Amino acid sequence: MSSIQSNASNEAITPRAKDYAQWYLDVVKRGDLADYSAVRGCMVIKPHGYAIWEKLQRALDDRFKATGHVNAYFPLFIPLSFFSKEEEHAAGFAKECAVVTHHRLKAVDGKVVVDPESALEEPLVVRPTSETIIWNQYRNWIQSYRDLPILVNQWANVVRWEMRTRLFLRTAEFLWQEGHTAHATEEEAREEVSRMLAVYADVAENVMAVPVVRGHKTEGERFAGAIDTQCIEGMMQDGKALQMGTSHYLGQNFAKSADVKFLNKDGKLEYVHATSWGVSTRLIGALIMTHSDDDGLVLPPALAPVQVVIVPIYKSADEQAATTAEARAVAEALRAKGLAVKVDDREGMQPGAKYYEWEKKGVPVRIEIGPRDLEKGSLCVVRRFVLEKEGETPQEQRRRKKAFLPRQEAIEGMEGLLATLQKELLERAKAARAKKTRVIDTLDEFEEFFRGDGGFAWVHWAGGKEEEEQMAEKYETSIRCIPFPEEIPEEARGEGVCILTGKPSRQRVLMAKAY
Amino acid sequence: MSSIQSNASNEAITPRAKDYAQWYLDVVKRGDLADYSAVRGCMVIKPHGYAIWEKLQRALDDRFKATGHVNAYFPLFIPLSFFSKEEEHAAGFAKECAVVTHHRLKAVDGKVVVDPESALEEPLVVRPTSETIIWNQYRNWIQSYRDLPILVNQWANVVRWEMRTRLFLRTAEFLWQEGHTAHATEEEAREEVSRMLAVYADVAENVMAVPVVRGHKTEGERFAGAIDTQCIEGMMQDGKALQMGTSHYLGQNFAKSADVKFLNKDGKLEYVHATSWGVSTRLIGALIMTHSDDDGLVLPPALAPVQVVIVPIYKSADEQAATTAEARAVAEALRAKGLAVKVDDREGMQPGAKYYEWEKKGVPVRIEIGPRDLEKGSLCVVRRFVLEKEGETPQEQRRRKKAFLPRQEAIEGMEGLLATLQKELLERAKAARAKKTRVIDTLDEFEEFFRGDGGFAWVHWAGGKEEEEQMAEKYETSIRCIPFPEEIPEEARGEGVCILTGKPSRQRVLMAKAY
Repeated sequence: MSSIQSNASNEAITPRAKDYAQWYLDVVKRGDLADYSAVRGCMVIKPHGYAIWEKLQRALDDRFKATGHVNAYFPLFIPLSFFSKEEEHAAGFAKECAVVTHHRLKAVDGKVVVDPESALEEPLVVRPTSETIIWNQYRNWIQSYRDLPILVNQWANVVRWEMRTRLFLRTAEFLWQEGHTAHATEEEAREEVSRMLAVYADVAENVMAVPVVRGHKTEGERFAGAIDTQCIEGMMQDGKALQMGTSHYLGQNFAKSADVKFLNKDGKLEYVHATSWGVSTRLIGALIMTHSDDDGLVLPPALAPVQVVIVPIYKSADEQAATTAEARAVAEALRAKGLAVKVDDREGMQPGAKYYEWEKKGVPVRIEIGPRDLEKGSLCVVRRFVLEKEGETPQEQRRRKKAFLPRQEAIEGMEGLLATLQKELLERAKAARAKKTRVIDTLDEFEEFFRGDGGFAWVHWAGGKEEEEQMAEKYETSIRCIPFPEEIPEEARGEGVCILTGKPSRQRVLMAKAY
Repeated sequence: MSSIQSNASNEAITPRAKDYAQWYLDVVKRGDLADYSAVRGCMVIKPHGYAIWEKLQRALDDRFKATGHVNAYFPLFIPLSFFSKEEEHAAGFAKECAVVTHHRLKAVDGKVVVDPESALEEPLVVRPTSETIIWNQYRNWIQSYRDLPILVNQWANVVRWEMRTRLFLRTAEFLWQEGHTAHATEEEAREEVSRMLAVYADVAENVMAVPVVRGHKTEGERFAGAIDTQCIEGMMQDGKALQMGTSHYLGQNFAKSADVKFLNKDGKLEYVHATSWGVSTRLIGALIMTHSDDDGLVLPPALAPVQVVIVPIYKSADEQAATTAEARAVAEALRAKGLAVKVDDREGMQPGAKYYEWEKKGVPVRIEIGPRDLEKGSLCVVRRFVLEKEGETPQEQRRRKKAFLPRQEAIEGMEGLLATLQKELLERAKAARAKKTRVIDTLDEFEEFFRGDGGFAWVHWAGGKEEEEQMAEKYETSIRCIPFPEEIPEEARGEGVCILTGKPSRQRVLMAKAY
């Protein structure tokens, strides 16, 4: 895949401070993660981006299976009439969808056109989410309490006809997983909702190294048709919130509209209780916006398709042979530890250009091997990042990334170094979030905060849907979640009064601008 | 997923000899593999079926990566105009497709309808295959020979508006992988085509235990736009052929229509050489039709989601506790060997019903543990099948499936037993194929063969496209492939004369009826 590598190194990355949106796009493009396609709003996930998605999928899927779930696959298309069934859900989703109306093409004067005679009796909607089609199927799967629970997940593509798109964060087509479970009781279904939110939080923090706040959505922000929507919210480097995953208790709404009843232990017919939960390729957007820097992508070792890249340095052919052989030997030793290692032995390319390219692709550790390292039996180990020290010059920081280590020590210590980097990324993200988090008690303070850089605001709230819209209009903020009590920082706990209405409030909510 | 289990055991399976098509449908349904959905021609792949697909995916994907490929993802939609670009390809594919013409729904009197004002400027075709959209993207990826080869694969859903559908074998939407590679030279591209066909043959024979014949398609059967189409052909139990995978050399056709040139080593611009190759969920159909019997699904251990099921047998509560504990202990010991084991400890269900159910799901080995086994320190190990012996009664055969083994011996020998079953399945399929394979030299003999049970006919052929159509019309047969010389059985080698035209022929081709 040399194409992707060489294209990636063509241009520099716009600094965050100069233009955040352009910086994001540059990181995605120079890091060879994704690209726009010929189809409006649809993205191409390039091999490097897809390899990250595969690692994320594996981390998620392993946890789904460990919690008793199985995968299945349901149709891409949903008959239009299904959207009329669950009213609230239809209102929320049946807006911007891709609609299939014909099933045949024909050639006219050497041009391919839609055959007007092939109109479908009933139009088909490309799934924006699969509740309706899946619950229609569950009707055949469920008769008695013995058939419950059904714990099914689907990995699929979905389409929502978005007007304003942004690679990974919001695209017309995206990849995701959607869990759809069926339970005999409300209690069991609500447990499932919490269990899966915990899985998402675990993956966010321990795999992606992105700290999240867990909580409930307000009525206005709930999933269409849900009784409770739980979410995890991350903070991006610009202080905006990104909803990273949701888990819904759907009550008996979908069971009622699809007529899915079961015979309970007492021999009575009851409607089934439903949950659904999902995360998508949007997570890659969260990953980028949390960790990357002005040199490009920064990846947590747990998700890096290449964890260690080794670059041999040479001038003569003899040196090339010797350093390349050593690079391969070191790679073998690291692979034996289960690490993902790449030897970059491309010819006709300066080592500097290689470093630059792998930095932009977010590889956590680089090893440089030159003739002098061979002589000394050492390796030059370079970390992709170090935690910042106050008052340090860029040059000093650069020096601190580099360590000349005895060969064996470098090899033996590599797993430890990667674990350290994983831990430091989470620490760094937590510190960045703390810096942009404020406990706010007055509207003036709130307004000032969001007129500036903004971030996460912990505020007391007792308003309703209307007041939320008022805040959104005035400050572009929304209630990201009503956090689980344990998620509220020490200094923000306790009762108070709503910043807008002055009414009493039992606990603070999390407000922010959001993607 | 108890639902799926209990539904599965409701009804018996129609014997093959009575109604082959109904037998197939019964095996699929009672084995809980798939079901039709509310959308015409689209299937639901149920958890047990999807688990087999996941294992197949892993086997394929590991081999793709081992041969240097990476995965990526391209859009679901293809602009209609793209289909006019590569003429031959368009003619072959741009017929029965799902076409998206609108992008919005709206509610009218509580009913959801397509918003007529949301018509797309250019209709979008749901991909039937992705050559056109991918090569449009490759134009941006490729500048010089340094960017080549591009070795990309995509796992995706595709849609072809089939009129007559059959679960797994032919459905409107199906899941597949499509490799799309770009090369500097024809030689390299053709090597890739052969390499991937070899990967498919390896998976078919060594993972699926389905013997295949490898060869080239005739001009009439080639992929639309291809210069060479290679394929693997399996024989189903009814003697019909099933095309299981194809690998295409596309020449410079797609590069020309998408204008993808590269600067070669001599500094000259050249069109890129393309290949594509794919297999789909159809493979599960092949798996079923090759191995299953009148008791339901038979799975090769390499693809069985559950390789060993353990059923505790008891009358009293004490016995239940003891045999269930032993079942769990044996399961742990087998899992420690990396085997996929399930303990079926469902209450209120007779052991016989459990056996019946797991047989229908194709589990290769069952272990029954009763109180007497505990006393004797033995396990009752039951194979899903044994190779047939002539003149044996069904009862004798059933007895031969069962072995009472000392506990430790049974555990230690389990991997060996599974390896034996895997090997025997391939042997059995080869023997069944040999039984229905005939070297045929005259049209009379040909006609008689296909008036009867039919199968694989090795015939000399020197006809063209028109003569092929003639044969298809008269006998419903087609040339499955012009086999690689080493694929031709000893007794069918050498030159001869065409059965239809009497013209000289250098080697025989493989003719059969096909799915």
